[in-house]
Amino acid sequence: MQPNSVFVENLETPCYAVIFSSLRTEGDNDYAATADRMQELAATMPGYLGIESARGGDGFGITVSYWRDEASIAAWRRHAEHVVAQERGKRVWYQHYEVRVARVERAWGRPAGV
Amino acid sequence: MQPNSVFVENLETPCYAVIFSSLRTEGDNDYAATADRMQELAATMPGYLGIESARGGDGFGITVSYWRDEASIAAWRRHAEHVVAQERGKRVWYQHYEVRVARVERAWGRPAGV
Repeated sequence: MQPNSVFVENLETPCYAVIFSSLRTEGDNDYAATADRMQELAATMPGYLGIESARGGDGFGITVSYWRDEASIAAWRRHAEHVVAQERGKRVWYQHYEVRVARVERAWGRPAGV
Repeated sequence: MQPNSVFVENLETPCYAVIFSSLRTEGDNDYAATADRMQELAATMPGYLGIESARGGDGFGITVSYWRDEASIAAWRRHAEHVVAQERGKRVWYQHYEVRVARVERAWGRPAGV
């Protein structure tokens, strides 16, 4: 039950974003189930503000997760189950990925405040 | 010729990211051609560092553009042809969108430095 078309709205700034872009390998290899589990797990972490994700038919995807502060990001990165998934990502699921940690200075949307 | 599966690599930090997530309306209505044109045009702007974009079959997409500084972002936002496209986006192409401007503090990837 991976959430699609879900917006993270009304972010209070400053906050932090982890921008993860990736190109998948061929085949599922438990990717979809693990991605769902990671999204569920992330949502239980202190400082979690939300996640948005999109992947095209070419296998290139972008996931952005939002966090209250850098300490929340560090704790999630060290979560034991997440560490296992990260290793599997490097070995199995991703041909290539890029990660950026960024401080969100301003946020707005339309329709606003829905 | 909208670039797909293109990574922005080896970002020098700090830099800035504009994270644009959107849900498209039905129908093309010149969207694809305009999106291509905007990517071409953005790449000519001072301070442009690159762009990544993914959209799923459900119409939800994320585009992240990277810039040297906030002044570069402001200049791109005010570019006359881009202003027209932004207005059309609000009226025609997007059911909903969210924008965040963020300062990229750290960036890494794998394979590294390819």
